[in-house]
Amino acid sequence: MRVEVIPTAGEAVSDDLLQKTVIVIDVLRATSSMATAIEHGARRIIPAETVRQATRMRPEGGMLGGERNGKKIPGFDFGNSPIEYAGEFVRGATIVMSTSNGTRAIRKSLRAGRLLAGAILNASACARAALSFGKDVRIVCAGTGDRFCLEDGLGAGLILHEMLSLKSDLEVGDFGQAMRCAFLHVKDYLEEALFQCHNGIRLARLGFADDVRFCARPNVYKTVPFLEGDGLVAWRPAG
Amino acid sequence: MRVEVIPTAGEAVSDDLLQKTVIVIDVLRATSSMATAIEHGARRIIPAETVRQATRMRPEGGMLGGERNGKKIPGFDFGNSPIEYAGEFVRGATIVMSTSNGTRAIRKSLRAGRLLAGAILNASACARAALSFGKDVRIVCAGTGDRFCLEDGLGAGLILHEMLSLKSDLEVGDFGQAMRCAFLHVKDYLEEALFQCHNGIRLARLGFADDVRFCARPNVYKTVPFLEGDGLVAWRPAG
Repeated sequence: MRVEVIPTAGEAVSDDLLQKTVIVIDVLRATSSMATAIEHGARRIIPAETVRQATRMRPEGGMLGGERNGKKIPGFDFGNSPIEYAGEFVRGATIVMSTSNGTRAIRKSLRAGRLLAGAILNASACARAALSFGKDVRIVCAGTGDRFCLEDGLGAGLILHEMLSLKSDLEVGDFGQAMRCAFLHVKDYLEEALFQCHNGIRLARLGFADDVRFCARPNVYKTVPFLEGDGLVAWRPAG
Repeated sequence: MRVEVIPTAGEAVSDDLLQKTVIVIDVLRATSSMATAIEHGARRIIPAETVRQATRMRPEGGMLGGERNGKKIPGFDFGNSPIEYAGEFVRGATIVMSTSNGTRAIRKSLRAGRLLAGAILNASACARAALSFGKDVRIVCAGTGDRFCLEDGLGAGLILHEMLSLKSDLEVGDFGQAMRCAFLHVKDYLEEALFQCHNGIRLARLGFADDVRFCARPNVYKTVPFLEGDGLVAWRPAG
């Protein structure tokens, strides 16, 4: 079983994702928000590329979430702050989400055999899910535009580390090895590391420092968003 | 002063390199070989893209070095093993070199303000040279084809770490931070790390395990290959 980490969504090649398990990571903040909503009982999250598409895709009784330039989209129920999704009111909800990078990375990966939304919050559950599918894995760091983001790389390194703790004979590509080493170097001060990266600094400036802290907590969730049809639903590892 | 690490030569954008100091790294083995030749007194190393070009560019009395698929090019004086360049016979020599990835990465970076050939062997001298030029820095990991190579990332992380030891207020991009963390995690067993990456495994299989060990020694050289006209000459930090 082979695991490769892809530095940015732009470098993910659709054909390479076929038949594989793809884990999309946008730690700050799209996949952290999705993981939070699913962990708190959301029934389904539908990723939409554009605001117009999100509005059109909203089902009867569904909600809208998302951001542009870090801020909530006017008229939407939620922004992209994971803390907003950590409440009773998401239980049973269908939420259509559109964010600048994360939902695009997911839509680019729709041809994957199986698709998971990974984060630092759900890394261990994500690792178990990916191993249980038994296929080669591509961990796609969403990045920002075409730029690699450290927080996604650290999230990928953590998920890979969790996978290797469960199955030590995985074949890991060079970029994955680098991300795992980077994660292991900062694992005892993950929060500080997130505040040093470009997006951590940007979000703190926008007033979202609590989001950065929230997203820096490893393995606190038991579920993983898993693509089924056009939406993400809860996947819960057995045992 | 800003420092960015570029994951592969393919991702380096020529226009972005203008006016900047560019450090090209191909740890296994092109820039390690160049650094070794220069440290042992070679007068000039001329990077050539193709075998034909190398043969045409060889000056009167000059020598030819290089590899394709890891092996010496037929009729050339040297292969791409740094150990071959660690002798008295390179003193004063002009060597035209062509390798699969390293010399191409250098030729792609010719529009840089200043260009250095970096390696683990000369990381500290390379850091001093780059800082002394006072310009923003791009560290270009050569990679293999379009693929990131761990050994180049670790070399970049080491050079960046040496730069930060001398000047702590550098602005460092996310990818550079990741590479520095990865280097710091493996710094006490750099040789083992090089044997775990794709090229280390490949070279060991081809019978070049000694080269991998040779290239894994940090900061043993006092000089850095520095581009002047069409060739690399010795740059020696003052003090």
